[in-house]
Amino acid sequence: MAIIVQKFGGTSVGNVERIRNTVNRIVEEKEKGNQIVVVVSAMGKTTDQLVSLANELSSYPSKREMDMLLSTGEQVTISLVAMALAEKGYDAISFTGWQAGILTEDVHSNARILEIHTEKIVENLNQNKIVIVAGFQGMTENNEITTLGRGGSDTTAVALAAALHAEKCMIYTDVTGVFTSDPRYIPNARKLQAVSYDEMLELANLGAGVLHARAVEFAKNYAVPLIVCSSLEREEGTIIEEEVAVEKNLIVRGVAFEDSIARVTIFGLENGFQQLSSVFTTLANRHIDVDIIIQNLTEKGNTYLSFSIKKDDLKETIDILETNQEALGIDHFESETGLAKVSIIGSGMVSNPGVAAKMFEVLSQNEIAIKMISTSEIKVSTVVDEEQMVKAAQLLHEAFELEAVEQNI
Amino acid sequence: MAIIVQKFGGTSVGNVERIRNTVNRIVEEKEKGNQIVVVVSAMGKTTDQLVSLANELSSYPSKREMDMLLSTGEQVTISLVAMALAEKGYDAISFTGWQAGILTEDVHSNARILEIHTEKIVENLNQNKIVIVAGFQGMTENNEITTLGRGGSDTTAVALAAALHAEKCMIYTDVTGVFTSDPRYIPNARKLQAVSYDEMLELANLGAGVLHARAVEFAKNYAVPLIVCSSLEREEGTIIEEEVAVEKNLIVRGVAFEDSIARVTIFGLENGFQQLSSVFTTLANRHIDVDIIIQNLTEKGNTYLSFSIKKDDLKETIDILETNQEALGIDHFESETGLAKVSIIGSGMVSNPGVAAKMFEVLSQNEIAIKMISTSEIKVSTVVDEEQMVKAAQLLHEAFELEAVEQNI
Repeated sequence: MAIIVQKFGGTSVGNVERIRNTVNRIVEEKEKGNQIVVVVSAMGKTTDQLVSLANELSSYPSKREMDMLLSTGEQVTISLVAMALAEKGYDAISFTGWQAGILTEDVHSNARILEIHTEKIVENLNQNKIVIVAGFQGMTENNEITTLGRGGSDTTAVALAAALHAEKCMIYTDVTGVFTSDPRYIPNARKLQAVSYDEMLELANLGAGVLHARAVEFAKNYAVPLIVCSSLEREEGTIIEEEVAVEKNLIVRGVAFEDSIARVTIFGLENGFQQLSSVFTTLANRHIDVDIIIQNLTEKGNTYLSFSIKKDDLKETIDILETNQEALGIDHFESETGLAKVSIIGSGMVSNPGVAAKMFEVLSQNEIAIKMISTSEIKVSTVVDEEQMVKAAQLLHEAFELEAVEQNI
Repeated sequence: MAIIVQKFGGTSVGNVERIRNTVNRIVEEKEKGNQIVVVVSAMGKTTDQLVSLANELSSYPSKREMDMLLSTGEQVTISLVAMALAEKGYDAISFTGWQAGILTEDVHSNARILEIHTEKIVENLNQNKIVIVAGFQGMTENNEITTLGRGGSDTTAVALAAALHAEKCMIYTDVTGVFTSDPRYIPNARKLQAVSYDEMLELANLGAGVLHARAVEFAKNYAVPLIVCSSLEREEGTIIEEEVAVEKNLIVRGVAFEDSIARVTIFGLENGFQQLSSVFTTLANRHIDVDIIIQNLTEKGNTYLSFSIKKDDLKETIDILETNQEALGIDHFESETGLAKVSIIGSGMVSNPGVAAKMFEVLSQNEIAIKMISTSEIKVSTVVDEEQMVKAAQLLHEAFELEAVEQNI
C-alpha cells in the first residue's frame, strides 16, 4: 500500500466547518486504498492570538517559551481532526511532534529536523489507522520542545514523506496551485502545471508564499514529489518534481515578491574579507538569515558592505552589531526599512542572456529605483521601495508575458 | 533552602492582569529565599472552549484525544507565566507534565500519578530558576499524554511537593480559605483556621470545591502541609495538616453540598453479593466513581440496589449496564437525575451520638425528602432533590451553629 502524506495549513482547519471539509479530503485519499499520514498547522488565527498574549506579558519573550506556547496550536488541531475522523467511522490517532519522533537540532523558533524515528507512525499505519501529526514542531535530544520556523508544517510534511518513503506529499492550501505570481496582487497570474524543485525553491525563497524553501529543499534532496492544491476547490494542482518540460518560450516562469525587508550598511571594514566573514559568521550563529549581500570599495579605500534581512530580524541584528562593533572592526553602520524584494525566476534564464537587462529596463522606465541587485542561474532579484513592490511585480509579469502563455497553449 | 510549591488555578491566570498578579505572589515567596516550583492550570475558560470545539466535531470524543486537546491549556499558561517572570528579571523555565517527569498510569482523562522523576526540576531549581509546571497532566510509560481529571492541578502540586520534600504546598484560589460551607450560597459561612486531612477529604469529596479529594489524600499520605489561600486578597488562609486543635463545641465543622447527582436503581439481582460485586467491578473498570450505595431486600425476596454517581457518568453507566445486563443478572434498572448531596462533616462526630438524628430531623421538619443516606465516622451524607440543596445546606449550617462559633472565640 502506498503511503501518502497530506498537509493542511491554518486556513484549511480554521474552524469546525473547515475541519469537516479537510476530513473529507483525508477520507477520499484513504478510500483509494492508501495509508495516510496527515500533517496540520494551528487553526487560523491561533498563532497570532498566542503571540499577542505573549507580547502583552513580555517585551522580548524567550524563544524557548515562545516554542512552548506556539506548539500548543497544532496540538489542538491534531486532536480535533482525529476526533472528526473517528466521528466519520475512521480509526485515527494524533501525535505531537515529539510523539511522532521528530528530532530537531537544539535551536528554538527555527530548528532544523535532524531525524525522524518513524516506528510509532508505521506501527499505527499498519493497524490501518490514519495518523495525524502536529506540524511545525519537534523535540531536541534533551526533551525540549522546538518549532521549525515559518512554513514549518510544510517541512514536517515533506520530512515525514521522505522518512516514510511516501508516494507523494500533498500540500493543501488556500490557492489552487503555484502561480506565475501572487494572484491576490497580480490579477492575470496563471497557474503552472508543473515546476522544478529549483524553480520552486527560488519562488519559495522569494516569498511566493505557497511553500517554504526549507520544505522544497527537503523534497528535492529526497526526491519527494510535491503536489500543491486547493483544500476547497477540486482543481488539479501544481506538481513539483525534478524534471519539468519547459513550456514554449517560457524563459521567465514567475514573478515573486516579498515585503518587510530591511537593509543594513556597514562602513569601514578595514581588513576586507576577514572581517566580512566574521560579520556573517556572527549573524549566522544567531540564526539570522542574510539574503542579498553587496560589497564595494569607496573612494577612500574603505570597504562598505550592504546586506538585506527580514525586518523582524533587524532589532537583533543591530544588537549583535553593536555588541561586536569593535571586535568586527566596524566603523559605523546604518539601517533602512520599508523595502521589498521583487524577483523573476525561470530555469531557461541561464541560456537566454538579456533577461536581467530587460528587467532593469522595465523598472527604470517606470521610475522604480533599484536599491540592490542579486542574480543566480535561474533568478534575478531586486530590492525596491515597499510601496512600489506590487507595481514592479505587475510591470514585470506583463513585460515577460506570463499571463499570455495560457492562451497560447 | 526550603522548596515551596505554589499552585494557581484557572481564575488566578485567567487574563494578562491576573497573570501579572500571580507573578507578584511567586516573586514574594522567591524573595523570602525559597526555591519555588509553580503549578498552574489552564487560563479561565480555555478548557470549556476546547471542550465545546470537541463537542462540535464529535458526539463522543475519545478520551485519548480529549487529553491531547485539553493538555494544551496548561501548556499555554506555563509559558506565559515563565515569560512574565522573565520580564520582571527572574530566571524561570516552564515544563509540561511529561517534561517534568510526571509518570501516570495508562488511563485517559482520569489518570493517577505513579511516580515523578524530579531530576530536571531539581537541576533547574539548583540553577536558581523558578520552575513552572503544567498541572493536570502527565505521561504514560508509552509516551501517551494523560490528564488527571477534575482538580488535577491540585494533585500535580501536592505530588510535586511530596516528591520534592517541599516545606509546604500553597493552593491559591478565588476564596480566602476553607469555609464551614460554600460562602456563595451560605452567606454566614465562616473561614476555618485549620482542618485535618480527614475532614478536608470529606469536604473535598463532598463537593466543597476548594480542593480535590485525590490531592488531599496525596497530601495526607506524604504529610505535606497544605495551605489554601486567596490569590487576590492578603488574608491568612486555612492550613490543612494531620493534627488540628478541635475548636470548642465544634462537633460539626462544615456543611458540604454538590449538585448534578444521578441515582441508578437495579432490580432483580438474584444471587446477591456475587452479582453486586460484578456490577461495581464492571463500573470501576470503566473508571466510574460510585458514591453512595444502598442495598435492600424487597418483599419478593429479590435484591434491589441503588447507587449514586455523577450525572456526567450516567450515559456511560447506562451503556455499561445495558451491555452487561445478562451477564450481571440484572432484571431491569432505572435512573433518576436532578439530585444533590448535602453532608455534614466533623472529626468530633464519632464521639457525639445524635448528630445524624438531628440532621434528619432538621431536614424532615422542613419537608426536605431524604432519598439516600450514607454515614462514616466523620460525616453524614444525604441525597435530596437538587432544588432543595441550598435550602437544606442553609438549614443545617444554622442548626449546627456554624456561623456562631466565630463570635464566641
